Amino acid sequence: MAQASTNMRLKLPITCFILEIILIILFGVLVQYNHETDAKEWYNETQSGHSNYENDFYYRYPSFQDVHVMIFIGFGFLMTFLQRYGFSSVGFNFLIAAFSLQWATLMQGFFHGMHGGKIHIGVESMINADFCTGSVLISFGAVLGKTSPVQLLIMAMFEVTLFAVNEFVVLSVVGGASIDAGGSMTIHTFGAYFGLVVTRILYRPNLDKSKDRNSSVYHSDLFAMIGTLYLWMFWPSFNSAVTAHGDAQHRTAMNTYYSLAACTLSTYAMSALTAHDGKLDMVHIQNAALAGGVAAGTAGEMMLTPFGSMVVGFLAGIISVLGFKYLSPILEKKLKIQDTCGVHNLHGMPGILGAIVGAVTASVATVEIYGGGMEAVFPDVADGTIDASFQGVRQAIALAVTLGIALLGGLIVGFILKLPVFGAPPDTVCFEDSIYWEVPGEEPGHEDQLTAVRMEECDKLNG
Amino acid sequence: MAQASTNMRLKLPITCFILEIILIILFGVLVQYNHETDAKEWYNETQSGHSNYENDFYYRYPSFQDVHVMIFIGFGFLMTFLQRYGFSSVGFNFLIAAFSLQWATLMQGFFHGMHGGKIHIGVESMINADFCTGSVLISFGAVLGKTSPVQLLIMAMFEVTLFAVNEFVVLSVVGGASIDAGGSMTIHTFGAYFGLVVTRILYRPNLDKSKDRNSSVYHSDLFAMIGTLYLWMFWPSFNSAVTAHGDAQHRTAMNTYYSLAACTLSTYAMSALTAHDGKLDMVHIQNAALAGGVAAGTAGEMMLTPFGSMVVGFLAGIISVLGFKYLSPILEKKLKIQDTCGVHNLHGMPGILGAIVGAVTASVATVEIYGGGMEAVFPDVADGTIDASFQGVRQAIALAVTLGIALLGGLIVGFILKLPVFGAPPDTVCFEDSIYWEVPGEEPGHEDQLTAVRMEECDKLNG
Amino acid sequence: MAQASTNMRLKLPITCFILEIILIILFGVLVQYNHETDAKEWYNETQSGHSNYENDFYYRYPSFQDVHVMIFIGFGFLMTFLQRYGFSSVGFNFLIAAFSLQWATLMQGFFHGMHGGKIHIGVESMINADFCTGSVLISFGAVLGKTSPVQLLIMAMFEVTLFAVNEFVVLSVVGGASIDAGGSMTIHTFGAYFGLVVTRILYRPNLDKSKDRNSSVYHSDLFAMIGTLYLWMFWPSFNSAVTAHGDAQHRTAMNTYYSLAACTLSTYAMSALTAHDGKLDMVHIQNAALAGGVAAGTAGEMMLTPFGSMVVGFLAGIISVLGFKYLSPILEKKLKIQDTCGVHNLHGMPGILGAIVGAVTASVATVEIYGGGMEAVFPDVADGTIDASFQGVRQAIALAVTLGIALLGGLIVGFILKLPVFGAPPDTVCFEDSIYWEVPGEEPGHEDQLTAVRMEECDKLNG
Repeated sequence: MAQASTNMRLKLPITCFILEIILIILFGVLVQYNHETDAKEWYNETQSGHSNYENDFYYRYPSFQDVHVMIFIGFGFLMTFLQRYGFSSVGFNFLIAAFSLQWATLMQGFFHGMHGGKIHIGVESMINADFCTGSVLISFGAVLGKTSPVQLLIMAMFEVTLFAVNEFVVLSVVGGASIDAGGSMTIHTFGAYFGLVVTRILYRPNLDKSKDRNSSVYHSDLFAMIGTLYLWMFWPSFNSAVTAHGDAQHRTAMNTYYSLAACTLSTYAMSALTAHDGKLDMVHIQNAALAGGVAAGTAGEMMLTPFGSMVVGFLAGIISVLGFKYLSPILEKKLKIQDTCGVHNLHGMPGILGAIVGAVTASVATVEIYGGGMEAVFPDVADGTIDASFQGVRQAIALAVTLGIALLGGLIVGFILKLPVFGAPPDTVCFEDSIYWEVPGEEPGHEDQLTAVRMEECDKLNG
Repeated sequence: MAQASTNMRLKLPITCFILEIILIILFGVLVQYNHETDAKEWYNETQSGHSNYENDFYYRYPSFQDVHVMIFIGFGFLMTFLQRYGFSSVGFNFLIAAFSLQWATLMQGFFHGMHGGKIHIGVESMINADFCTGSVLISFGAVLGKTSPVQLLIMAMFEVTLFAVNEFVVLSVVGGASIDAGGSMTIHTFGAYFGLVVTRILYRPNLDKSKDRNSSVYHSDLFAMIGTLYLWMFWPSFNSAVTAHGDAQHRTAMNTYYSLAACTLSTYAMSALTAHDGKLDMVHIQNAALAGGVAAGTAGEMMLTPFGSMVVGFLAGIISVLGFKYLSPILEKKLKIQDTCGVHNLHGMPGILGAIVGAVTASVATVEIYGGGMEAVFPDVADGTIDASFQGVRQAIALAVTLGIALLGGLIVGFILKLPVFGAPPDTVCFEDSIYWEVPGEEPGHEDQLTAVRMEECDKLNG
Repeated sequence: MAQASTNMRLKLPITCFILEIILIILFGVLVQYNHETDAKEWYNETQSGHSNYENDFYYRYPSFQDVHVMIFIGFGFLMTFLQRYGFSSVGFNFLIAAFSLQWATLMQGFFHGMHGGKIHIGVESMINADFCTGSVLISFGAVLGKTSPVQLLIMAMFEVTLFAVNEFVVLSVVGGASIDAGGSMTIHTFGAYFGLVVTRILYRPNLDKSKDRNSSVYHSDLFAMIGTLYLWMFWPSFNSAVTAHGDAQHRTAMNTYYSLAACTLSTYAMSALTAHDGKLDMVHIQNAALAGGVAAGTAGEMMLTPFGSMVVGFLAGIISVLGFKYLSPILEKKLKIQDTCGVHNLHGMPGILGAIVGAVTASVATVEIYGGGMEAVFPDVADGTIDASFQGVRQAIALAVTLGIALLGGLIVGFILKLPVFGAPPDTVCFEDSIYWEVPGEEPGHEDQLTAVRMEECDKLNG
């Protein structure tokens, strides 16, 4: 494939400046404080009986910060497992997340937050923007090491837009409203399948020329565990961040906590069981142990029970390890899907599992179980518009719609990213920081010959 | 000692699957949402006048997440100081914590959370489960590097059970109720002495064959500082997480903050003072600086004053460094206690100090100082059942009971763990990841001969 | 320069013990629980109608913990970028922060928290103490690698005192009250210019003898990104931690969030644009991407709008990268300011930008925009004492006062630190851990010759 120069001297600044200036202008025209962040409006609310502790900030800001850590540290460090791609993993994650959360504010606001022609924002929109960003970062995991930062920004721009469309369709349109507070469908399934199609379109037949760098070293695996653990610890906050106040937030966090704990045990079990010498594989621990959070994303808000949550997490861990061990190699060989981080195993299959669990759990909801709390979880069932089994059908439709938009969107965006103008790395220098970064040596106090050789190579490319 | 194969291919999966399936069944039979996580019950409460912001979730969830970070990142990374044991430190910490928190939910619920034959759970039980897990991880620190993951799971199973028994006895039975919100006794003293006895029973006379790996390298000490700092920063949340709402939570966090700050200065002072060349020792900084949190675990909730807290922290730092420097070598040589992480110095002695401070502080409590707030801290003193000095006696008894159960429990569990079926590593391959983990090379891009040699060695063992 | 021995065996313990004992005595004499941490007082408040959820703990403690992480992990790890100074960066950061927060409690209490001769403390004073500590750590960044821990403690003692004086003058005296909740002036501008003057006075003409260590290695840059990201993620909490409850806290966090996001994009753009080969520079990403948080420190609380916040952040990123690229080398060559971490670019210029933005935004405040919420942000404007444009003037005066006290204070303290009794490292052994720390080898399992040579060298010095 004819490649443009990978030199980012003009490409990246131009892209960043154009995008940011557009963002700033659109924010200036469209975005306003909502009633809880506006000095005048909130003052008026306090005059009419509200107290400061009822400001949504105090219900949601701790969860927001946990989600924020997942996005920047969690995703960023999870991807540092590659031996020579730590700067890019953390650094590009940082860049595209900072862009995506701004763009998501606009797109999500446009589709479901307009008030009199203006987008009103507060802590809940910030969480939703971070959620949408999470979806982009999942797709980033699929193409990790094989894309330029400009490609990633372009991908993010389109994916955020499609995410907002899908979210709007799923949560507001499709036969009424589906439930997906933790985003098993809208975030994980969407992000995974979108990314998988993109990486399929960007298939590199000669990627094995970079094979020696497509693996970890001892310290890079430890850095990645920082990412894993922050994702694992804060997933209860992720799934509960935008659920209804009170019991719903509380219950969702707890369900996710038990789902993840059960998932961790099945992950360790499967990792040892599937290794010929019984040795644990860091890839499984870093990824599959998180599948329980993904799988509890839809039903976590429901009366799933801790028992149900643990069953779901237990299965998610098993599925995920099996995926890494047996399915990913097949996807790569037969379907030409080069999924660097194995997002299909962490976000794809567990996301679908979560969607199915959500549909089933919704379809068996009864007033005996939910009482007056039905209103907060399934408003349409509570007010008699539909019965619970139809809510289950809605959930299933939502999954189908999500898959459709993700696959079609990924297809189109993949071809756009294939245009040879974005400075993608050549097959010989994938998974390599020094093509886009000034890279110091490995060891203190003496020159690193390997680095020197690599950088020279890259300098030639950057022409 | 005749060792079983260290190959975990069957041992670990069987253990994990059996334990998790038992957990799932017991959760299905016994565990229910409490009134704040149940949709129907909380709805009914809101109908009878409660507001969503009164849900315990908003009082405790931020503290819970801080505690959660301490358990998984704090303990996990603190133990990565060993040069070749980072995967195991973080990874086994992750595994046994994920197991322990589930098992602790059941055991603690069984002993002090049953309602009509069911265990009711919510954010407070999640914090307590994490607390109990912390105790297991302290014991893990004592045996670090010398145990298989199966041994650790078996240890956790027994230790969690005994922890719940001790907690029940100490907080509910022993002459009424003792106070130990931050667990100087129930968590730190218990975990430390339990672990010390276990490591004594598992004494390895030939452990010096693994001596060259029982130390740090430059980067592993930096990773360990991540653990240290998270423990240090969030200890105020740990000690205050389950205290009474309002002033008690607020005061406990503040007391712990000042105790830790004072402890840090005395730790640095003692570390330089006890070195022949005045150089600071990372072992002291990583561990002793935390002793102020341990020592404020019982009295932190009381009207200890910031002044009192600082005195306690100051002493804890001094004791802890002296322990590392002079006592640990003696314990190893004379008493054959091989305490890898020096838990005696971080959790053992400071825990006892904390218990004593708690007893003294309790015994001088007066209505002049506590006013109507006495009720929340010392209910039995407030209602006249006992006087304050007897509360002090109770606290002392609680310490004695804790030590007794820890020592006896550790003895029994140590002998169980000695059974040669759990795949413990041989003396020559302790403190070594590659016996239980697929380990990549140290350096990017060229083969690591050392690793290759080690893995070959381990492969022979795994036969 | 004639140097005292760098051996810390007596110097450091004596300094730490004297300081801590003074602190403990002063706390014993002067410090009391405030009405929200005192058992009796809070109980009485609940009897007169307050609820536990109105305790300031629940409004501010999550923000406090975020700030706390910024101080210990954020600043600590940000400075680990140096290849051989990780122990000192994290470890001295830890030491001087633990000292400063105690001393700040006293100094800030003395200047603006006395009640009947006593200093009353709670979560807000803890946040303010951490803020003051942040200022000291900024100055630490300027002198990083060239100072002994004793020098740093002495610097902290003086700087905390001057910080409290300046804060008192700026927030209470200067023509009434200025607004600076996130500390663009009082924290960032003050800390940066104070540190820059100190490092100027401590100018080392032969520092290039340590040049080979004054740079990063691959892994040290990744450790530094942990610091960067925690600062970045939690800056919204930093700026909003002590603003008024309700909309002000909510709005400040959100403004900061968008300022940082915009800043990140302009930072990446400028980093690529100013490199001859378009490669991103970790120094810029680690530092300049944070400038948006600094620059939103004064106006973040105001009705700056998300649009305004983004403009500010966008400019801050540009200024900061330009500073690193072009201004820092000039400052070093022409003005002899050796600014190790480039605090002028991250805290100095963006702090001044933030002060100016604050002055302008204040001067255009109107009742139309703020409504009844004017009271909480600009009390003097709300009650008609002054008009908004004069509030703008006040803000400008506050900046001038801050700069004046910082420059003059830094001058005096710099000369004090120059006294050759504090064990500063010689020019040949700057940026080197092994002069003050026991340092293990770099690589597992074989001796590190380089380390051995260095330590021998240092041992001679400590002789």
